[in-house]
Amino acid sequence: MTSMMTVDTAIYARWIVPIRPANICLENHCILIRERKIVAIVPQDEASQQYRANQVIELNTHVLMPGLINAHGHSAMTLFRGLADDLPLMEWLSDHIWPAEGQWVSEEFVQDGTLLAIAEMIRSGTTCFSDMYFFPEITAKVALEHGIRTQICFPVMDFPTAWGSGPDEYIHKGLQLIDQYRHNDFVSVAFGPHAPYTVSDEPLQKIVTLAEQLDVPVQIHLHETAFEVFDAEDKSGIRPIQRLADLGLLSPRLQCVHMTQISDEDLALLTSSRASVIHCPESNLKLASGFCPVDRLLDAGVNVALGTDGAASNNDLDLLGELRTAALLGKAVANNAAAINAFTALEMATINGAKALGLDEKIGSLEIGKFADIIAIDFSEIESAPLYDPISHLVYATSSRQVTHSWIGGDLRMNNRQLTMIDSQGLREKADQWASNISNHNMKK
Amino acid sequence: MTSMMTVDTAIYARWIVPIRPANICLENHCILIRERKIVAIVPQDEASQQYRANQVIELNTHVLMPGLINAHGHSAMTLFRGLADDLPLMEWLSDHIWPAEGQWVSEEFVQDGTLLAIAEMIRSGTTCFSDMYFFPEITAKVALEHGIRTQICFPVMDFPTAWGSGPDEYIHKGLQLIDQYRHNDFVSVAFGPHAPYTVSDEPLQKIVTLAEQLDVPVQIHLHETAFEVFDAEDKSGIRPIQRLADLGLLSPRLQCVHMTQISDEDLALLTSSRASVIHCPESNLKLASGFCPVDRLLDAGVNVALGTDGAASNNDLDLLGELRTAALLGKAVANNAAAINAFTALEMATINGAKALGLDEKIGSLEIGKFADIIAIDFSEIESAPLYDPISHLVYATSSRQVTHSWIGGDLRMNNRQLTMIDSQGLREKADQWASNISNHNMKK
Repeated sequence: MTSMMTVDTAIYARWIVPIRPANICLENHCILIRERKIVAIVPQDEASQQYRANQVIELNTHVLMPGLINAHGHSAMTLFRGLADDLPLMEWLSDHIWPAEGQWVSEEFVQDGTLLAIAEMIRSGTTCFSDMYFFPEITAKVALEHGIRTQICFPVMDFPTAWGSGPDEYIHKGLQLIDQYRHNDFVSVAFGPHAPYTVSDEPLQKIVTLAEQLDVPVQIHLHETAFEVFDAEDKSGIRPIQRLADLGLLSPRLQCVHMTQISDEDLALLTSSRASVIHCPESNLKLASGFCPVDRLLDAGVNVALGTDGAASNNDLDLLGELRTAALLGKAVANNAAAINAFTALEMATINGAKALGLDEKIGSLEIGKFADIIAIDFSEIESAPLYDPISHLVYATSSRQVTHSWIGGDLRMNNRQLTMIDSQGLREKADQWASNISNHNMKK
Repeated sequence: MTSMMTVDTAIYARWIVPIRPANICLENHCILIRERKIVAIVPQDEASQQYRANQVIELNTHVLMPGLINAHGHSAMTLFRGLADDLPLMEWLSDHIWPAEGQWVSEEFVQDGTLLAIAEMIRSGTTCFSDMYFFPEITAKVALEHGIRTQICFPVMDFPTAWGSGPDEYIHKGLQLIDQYRHNDFVSVAFGPHAPYTVSDEPLQKIVTLAEQLDVPVQIHLHETAFEVFDAEDKSGIRPIQRLADLGLLSPRLQCVHMTQISDEDLALLTSSRASVIHCPESNLKLASGFCPVDRLLDAGVNVALGTDGAASNNDLDLLGELRTAALLGKAVANNAAAINAFTALEMATINGAKALGLDEKIGSLEIGKFADIIAIDFSEIESAPLYDPISHLVYATSSRQVTHSWIGGDLRMNNRQLTMIDSQGLREKADQWASNISNHNMKK
């Protein structure tokens, strides 16, 4: 008799889409988890013969895949979901979002808004999210307490906010965060200069030096609209991405969010620097910001990840819906129905997100040695019938409400649609209280 | 004491968005239903004082709105959901869909596929759907048996199919259907000439005469792709819509499906004829067919309704998701974030659909005297928090899985997510059997 290996958890599933190797779907396999990591993926009979598991979960109508990586968002803004819609970017920001932020953003706001966002993200299959918002130390704490993986991009901009007096203080506070979480598996910290039009050269130069010294990522909103690029060219003579390149910011550590405007020269800068692009299709559509040419980027070898952006401009944090939009829209923008095929869309939401965040050795696919960040999606209802190809269904015919289970670092964070670490009812009441305060204040104005 | 009026059903709801009057949301009102129709919408205390209801339903966290109208689809094709993806229209049709149809389409296929589609549509809020497919008499029968409202567009094309030998037989069979359902409230029948490139002048002329004599609608795929228009201009010197106009087909009875290519002259033909456009954004994206300029059409006064198209090119029949896509995409195509606002998107999926189908005196809004085609959507989960504006949430932050109840002509067709007239488990098994047969056949080839 061979001796059996003991593991923490064994998940038996009807299908597994591991993302790596690419384009495969395993049938009737089992994932074995020990000490937070995947130790084996084997056929089910082999699993039951060779492994003794402390916990066994059988998912006979489900597909397992890597947890989704939401590479750009502003979690706390979930408290502004639906506060102002159907407005262009600058009017939406200047007349609604910035005044509301000036009035309401505080540690408590960030605490409650971030938790609401985390609840929604886990319920829709996200196991790792990037965040850029004020009081990032609160965001990091809330994420850590509730067991979800996160990249915190601490904001840097020229003007004072509730979080600090200006670039020097932002960078100073950010460096403390980098120090605090340097060896943390769940939280990574990145520089978050807001955008070329809100950060001047001096702080950007500091960020270039510090990011290189400390080897940490940088995330920035870039070429979100045609106006941004036009305005910069009009005032300075060069396009924003060229200015960042001249300052030395372009590198594999850079995460360029949006990029709806890409000239041939811009594309050359992206490919030569190996910077990543974070595509946020639904926010770009809703704010009529423009169309990111995803197919062209992928063809040129650029790593393209996906983000929901904040719930104030989306208005959900559903990355499964976002990857469907990315696949559908990407075809139309490329004028080619074969562009952004189903598997490519899944890659953008998983392994490409991990690459962008510098975490692809840890997460982004179901491979031995990686953290067990896994979601289960139920295909038992009639919306999944008939079934010819699980990969097609995941992208083109699956609602995020079919995500039933979520493990992050091997721990169960959602069990049959129930969050294990978050009191949904209490959270709902807190959100309603915020909405009531914010609405009453707006009405009085 | 005033005498109380007896009604069949009273639905007490937290919010009601009746669509007409436009842009309002009633709070804590009640809808009273008698003999299939809405007899009153009043504040809740008034309802309990003045009406005695045989059935009372309280929905304290829900919004009621008119059932959605899916103005274009091919229900039976749901059995091909996910059979072939990521392909351009003509390759997808010629190499995959048409051969599969040639092999599999039969009365039994249409029976099972249509029922699968109806189940999915009711579960996602649709209470009336238009269908264009072979064996339309089966589609009509299945819809009628399961209590969903439908417009059956019987197909007409130049070539023989499993349903008939050619145009004469299609039209002959269709006239029988028109006769059979002339006085039916649930089923209306329309001519369904497939497309300009599949129907020659002679049958189109017959359809013009008959549709006018019998006063029935005509639905046709039109200007779906740039190639369709280019090819017609190349061969005949005129654009397809001009050819239809010359034949006399353009009228308020005409439903033009897709219309991704619209010149100024095309727009003038649409406005002067008062024909409707049926916009199918997700199918247009997935097949990279092009972008329908919805904002331009609405500005010109054209009635624009929404359709999912068939599940083989979408790949779901979720009109709530479709109206969200229509709102988001419409802004980006118009390059204006204020275009296709939330309420406009709801109109497209309700009253505009009713207008296109010639049913706007019967359905499309919650008004006294109209049929009680009503859906309830639950806002109690955290994805709906916080809540500033129910109309915004319906469009930008609601999943079709939040549709909990559906009434069609006053009868409850879904009760707390459970279909009342359809055996979901049996349906799932039938769909799996079809998929198994179709997959095995494809593998043997």
